[in-house]
Amino acid sequence: MPAVSDADIRRVARSLLVDHGPDAITLRAIARELGITAPALYRYYESRDDLVAAVRTDVCLDLAKDLEAAVEGLPDDAGTRFFAICRGFRRWALTHSREFTLVFASPVTAGITSAMQQFGEPVGRIFLGAAGRLLTDYAVVTTPTELIPPELRDDLIKFQTELLRVLADSGQKFPAEKLDLGVSYVMIQFWARLYGHVTLEVFGNYPIQISHPDVLFDSTLADIGRGIGLVAG
Amino acid sequence: MPAVSDADIRRVARSLLVDHGPDAITLRAIARELGITAPALYRYYESRDDLVAAVRTDVCLDLAKDLEAAVEGLPDDAGTRFFAICRGFRRWALTHSREFTLVFASPVTAGITSAMQQFGEPVGRIFLGAAGRLLTDYAVVTTPTELIPPELRDDLIKFQTELLRVLADSGQKFPAEKLDLGVSYVMIQFWARLYGHVTLEVFGNYPIQISHPDVLFDSTLADIGRGIGLVAG
Repeated sequence: MPAVSDADIRRVARSLLVDHGPDAITLRAIARELGITAPALYRYYESRDDLVAAVRTDVCLDLAKDLEAAVEGLPDDAGTRFFAICRGFRRWALTHSREFTLVFASPVTAGITSAMQQFGEPVGRIFLGAAGRLLTDYAVVTTPTELIPPELRDDLIKFQTELLRVLADSGQKFPAEKLDLGVSYVMIQFWARLYGHVTLEVFGNYPIQISHPDVLFDSTLADIGRGIGLVAG
Repeated sequence: MPAVSDADIRRVARSLLVDHGPDAITLRAIARELGITAPALYRYYESRDDLVAAVRTDVCLDLAKDLEAAVEGLPDDAGTRFFAICRGFRRWALTHSREFTLVFASPVTAGITSAMQQFGEPVGRIFLGAAGRLLTDYAVVTTPTELIPPELRDDLIKFQTELLRVLADSGQKFPAEKLDLGVSYVMIQFWARLYGHVTLEVFGNYPIQISHPDVLFDSTLADIGRGIGLVAG
């Protein structure tokens, strides 16, 4: 039986994902591909879920590299960089639809936290860092506190705390007094719109054929920017 | 070999979908379940894609029934009914996550049009009908034409035409002069936000654990309603 490494296993799992989608990642298929027995895989992964979690982590690391590349060489303007990251996310999703499906559009599995809930992980850190810069450098208009339902306040406060922790960990200076409930609320709504547009496009769910999806996406970013008092860069 | 009907095949296909997700719908699994040979299935469906298309149609019919039930007995107010349909869509998606995945979050397959692009089909007709009522009865504030990128105009005009056709087919009176590019644009943005929130929730992609997702969803509808000059009913 050939010796296999963890890297071999992940490589094969990734190519099954890319060629056939998330459900194609099975221990049996990987063992067959590597010419080993399925039990031999258990030395590395206790279950399929463990292996899928490892693949998700790899995918997120790649996405993070793409997002970092999306801002490379751009002017040091928080708005420009934030919207470039949004565009980078869309571009990545459209060119990596199966990886996107695995990480962002797969049923929630016990023990796997959503990529966006892993604040300390690269993708969350990049989005939050860029949002932090935007809040620091611009006068962002947010939802007035009285329009936010009181039932949401505890969650929003938790989100604030996490955000401050990530920004502090990354050494980013951030004026904590700018972080009120409205900011947290707007960030969640922003993410829902960004995610919504990208997912809609990846899965072809626009109500019409869109001839210029890039333009529609930029226009959406501009709308969102106007909504928080910015102009998309 | 037992005689099978198309209804048997669709029933088995649906239960495979509900129990194991879209990828579990295979001709082999259905033949096994029904105790027939896979070729016997070809009398009914030329390919797996054909069968999946039939299941999608069935799912959309069920969703349409759910959406109709969501407005039953409600006051005859266009706003109340429109937002009730939005809530019905979310509720259906959360309680039918595998069916939702098949119809709204699966890779685009050649020959299968998105559920939202089938204007004449029940789900599209319900959403468009309710939106038409809303536009007729309320003074909806839309995006000024000069903020809409010119590249999108042809698509938006096509959307207008389809919308008017559906409304005319359904015998709904609609003041055509109210239908400008801004209305089409806002309808597409609205759908993206609704779809985005629902998909985010189905796949657990909020950036934090949300203790009261119902409240957050209602709050989002209220935000959207305020954005077009309404208050969510």
